[in-house]
Amino acid sequence: MECKVAHHDQDHVFERIFHPRSVAVIGVSSQAAGFGSGIVDALRAIGFQGALYGVNPKGGTYRDMKLFTSLADIPDPIDFAVIAVPAGFVPETLEECRRRGIAGAEILSAGFSETGTPEGSALEEEVRRISARGIRVVGPNCFGIYCPQSGLTLLPGPDLSRESGHVGFLSQSGGMSIDFGHIGKWMGVRFSKVVSFGNGVDLRETELLEYLGRDPETRVIAMYVEGVEDGRGFFRVLRDVAARKPVIINKGGLSEAGSRAVASHTASMGGSRVIWESALRQAGAIQVGDLWELAQTCLAFSLLPWQVYRGISVAGGGGALGVSAGDLAERYGLSLPVFDDQMSDRILEVLPRPGSSARNPVDAANPFVGPDAYRHVFTHAGSDARVDAQVLIQLLHHYKSAALSLGVDSVHSITPYEQQAQALADARQATGKPAILVMPDFKQGKESLDIEELIRDARQAFLGKGIPVFSDLGDAMQALSHVSAYAAHQHASREA
Amino acid sequence: MECKVAHHDQDHVFERIFHPRSVAVIGVSSQAAGFGSGIVDALRAIGFQGALYGVNPKGGTYRDMKLFTSLADIPDPIDFAVIAVPAGFVPETLEECRRRGIAGAEILSAGFSETGTPEGSALEEEVRRISARGIRVVGPNCFGIYCPQSGLTLLPGPDLSRESGHVGFLSQSGGMSIDFGHIGKWMGVRFSKVVSFGNGVDLRETELLEYLGRDPETRVIAMYVEGVEDGRGFFRVLRDVAARKPVIINKGGLSEAGSRAVASHTASMGGSRVIWESALRQAGAIQVGDLWELAQTCLAFSLLPWQVYRGISVAGGGGALGVSAGDLAERYGLSLPVFDDQMSDRILEVLPRPGSSARNPVDAANPFVGPDAYRHVFTHAGSDARVDAQVLIQLLHHYKSAALSLGVDSVHSITPYEQQAQALADARQATGKPAILVMPDFKQGKESLDIEELIRDARQAFLGKGIPVFSDLGDAMQALSHVSAYAAHQHASREA
Repeated sequence: MECKVAHHDQDHVFERIFHPRSVAVIGVSSQAAGFGSGIVDALRAIGFQGALYGVNPKGGTYRDMKLFTSLADIPDPIDFAVIAVPAGFVPETLEECRRRGIAGAEILSAGFSETGTPEGSALEEEVRRISARGIRVVGPNCFGIYCPQSGLTLLPGPDLSRESGHVGFLSQSGGMSIDFGHIGKWMGVRFSKVVSFGNGVDLRETELLEYLGRDPETRVIAMYVEGVEDGRGFFRVLRDVAARKPVIINKGGLSEAGSRAVASHTASMGGSRVIWESALRQAGAIQVGDLWELAQTCLAFSLLPWQVYRGISVAGGGGALGVSAGDLAERYGLSLPVFDDQMSDRILEVLPRPGSSARNPVDAANPFVGPDAYRHVFTHAGSDARVDAQVLIQLLHHYKSAALSLGVDSVHSITPYEQQAQALADARQATGKPAILVMPDFKQGKESLDIEELIRDARQAFLGKGIPVFSDLGDAMQALSHVSAYAAHQHASREA
Repeated sequence: MECKVAHHDQDHVFERIFHPRSVAVIGVSSQAAGFGSGIVDALRAIGFQGALYGVNPKGGTYRDMKLFTSLADIPDPIDFAVIAVPAGFVPETLEECRRRGIAGAEILSAGFSETGTPEGSALEEEVRRISARGIRVVGPNCFGIYCPQSGLTLLPGPDLSRESGHVGFLSQSGGMSIDFGHIGKWMGVRFSKVVSFGNGVDLRETELLEYLGRDPETRVIAMYVEGVEDGRGFFRVLRDVAARKPVIINKGGLSEAGSRAVASHTASMGGSRVIWESALRQAGAIQVGDLWELAQTCLAFSLLPWQVYRGISVAGGGGALGVSAGDLAERYGLSLPVFDDQMSDRILEVLPRPGSSARNPVDAANPFVGPDAYRHVFTHAGSDARVDAQVLIQLLHHYKSAALSLGVDSVHSITPYEQQAQALADARQATGKPAILVMPDFKQGKESLDIEELIRDARQAFLGKGIPVFSDLGDAMQALSHVSAYAAHQHASREA
């Protein structure tokens, strides 16, 4: 609270960085090659609406864009710069930006401390000194900022989603930032802001976390951290932010070999596994093991109520899935409450006999059980007070076999995924219990691309009803367990 | 050894079951619906070459197949029967088969002890008594036998691979058997025999394991076990077989809820997690947690040398992958030996600078590094005595971005996956160190189906060179660690 004024000033600067009215890209070659022209293409493709200027000392044009020979020649005010010149030219370029009154710059160029050379470190030190005199810097050796609302995007990111959301992601690694951007697009995770900060000469984990903590657009924070600059400061801010918003952290480089890779990757210090894990736990952060778990956890936080989950119901066709449901639930601290005879009989009313069972998991005996039956199953199962969430498992590839048997050309036409999504939404509405879809993909041969297309369409249909979709039952339960642990932690903190 | 003669007699029976010259399907309705007509379609689709007869008490025809009104009317000898009549008619049908001198029958019908009813259990008991009088039975409540060499296939399995291989799979669950069949087809796992034995009234885990143990077609055995009938006998056979062949086991129903699902699924007894895990370990079996891990482990055993793996080299474009490589290796008991300056410099000769690093993991800085460079990288890295296997990580979706930038229509035409596969095979040849490909799929939106197709084609190109392909680096290391643990166990047993 004592920093309110300072934050207010800073937020004005951050506003110019994340929502710039004008952007200068410095280092655009006149050929479609290199970081500069790449980011110009990407900004145009994603639909950046502000003024966009390109700079190249030799002038010329890139596509239809006139290139200015220097920053000084650009007549209009500039909020944000993208620097894509060779490392040796970065300091003077940044200094020009600073003099020009630009609020911040992302430096995409590599060739700094991550090279492990004295020259690289000296250049980075120079960049740091210039930044300290009055211009905020993201990078160097990074992919920059993605902010769909303002139309900023990462270096290789012309095809990220244009839709805004509420997940903020901070990543030392450019690769992780773009990979999560891509995964989020189809998985249903939408971002407020993504920052790939690379070597993090100025803006990095702590200050950016603090900013996302007060950013009203950001409700969920995800981070890929290789090392932190100031451990004490970071954990103080983390504790503070995690008390208000979920902060999901993937810490890379916890092994000996991982630490070594960190050193050459983004030139920051790693740290021992035990220390990190206990410090993150104490700070109330949610720890995940890899990018997929990070993405799926963000999906769960995006679409499911933040509450404690204990019991779940699971239904689907194919008994082994039911058996593994119990095993997996136990692994993730969840349970499948056993339905009593009355409930079981009521559920069985709509399922094929013999072959179905309905003690929880509900084994529907065949994969073609339809929307009306599942509406019935989940409306009843969800009325059990011990059930906190409900999971449907669908194996869509069976519909292709059915289409072949029936002589139907399009597997889409006989697969009722829209209606299944509606049935789940109806049951959720009737019971107040959130619904989850699990859609394993067992057929990934080239001849099954139509099934893949079906799965992708079905995923969007369920997402359209606010139902998160996972490829694997274990993944779904793991993500649910993270939401649950967060809610339990918040509850305990409030009680204390 | 004392059972040689008994085995020989049994093997004659097994030969008639797994390689029947003639099959009768009993319970074929004249419409294309039901298990009977389904299995007829499946057997024809997969190319069963023997004589195929259909039986229906009402006679008639199914497609172009004349249906016999009874088994007795079929003039020729019959080796194997598929029973797909309602549960109540199964005993008399099986008895007819026995009288007819049929060696074995798979009973696809459900409605036996898995229903939990006295009627179901009584029917099953009757089936058991008939079987004991001289006909081997697979099932009931199962999907039957898949044997590509003879053209037998599972109930819903017209599209399983026709290629034979050396993995035998035994599964109490029909769902698991067909799912693994589908996964194996594109993943590159080829089967000798798959048996879904359901309630296992006669042939089940122990005897089938013993049979696969002496089956020369089967080099690797995989099992999905929910419960065993005779624990002592099973573990005695398991220990014996596992001393000669890898036996990979996924035990379902280890949790309380899982055990309950087992009871209604295949009517067998589960057992506590601790007892199972320690017994399986002592017997020398390889334990896996789910179907995916089972399949990937079979892939590794199918394509990689069975040896102890300690150090691995990892190369790819995108630094964060390198960081996680070290973390993951540690998790799976592997390591990434640090390359010395000389090696690192030699590797860097062919990689983009700045941005690349080559201490292991080898971070190639961009995803378009080509086959010649990787041939160089792996030929050198593989010459390090501490490296036992080499992993390439490829992110093919970047080629689509490149195709778009270049204005090229087909992403296939600019993606050198054939050459990358050849480069890895060359390096394997030059160094004697096995190669592995990891190909994550970060773009699963509908607009990226062309990338999906590319990934599927690339997978087959690498498989064609005998290089196993995984979607996830952690999965690859986990599978490798299972092979390594098996080899270490075999080595220790020989020493003892």
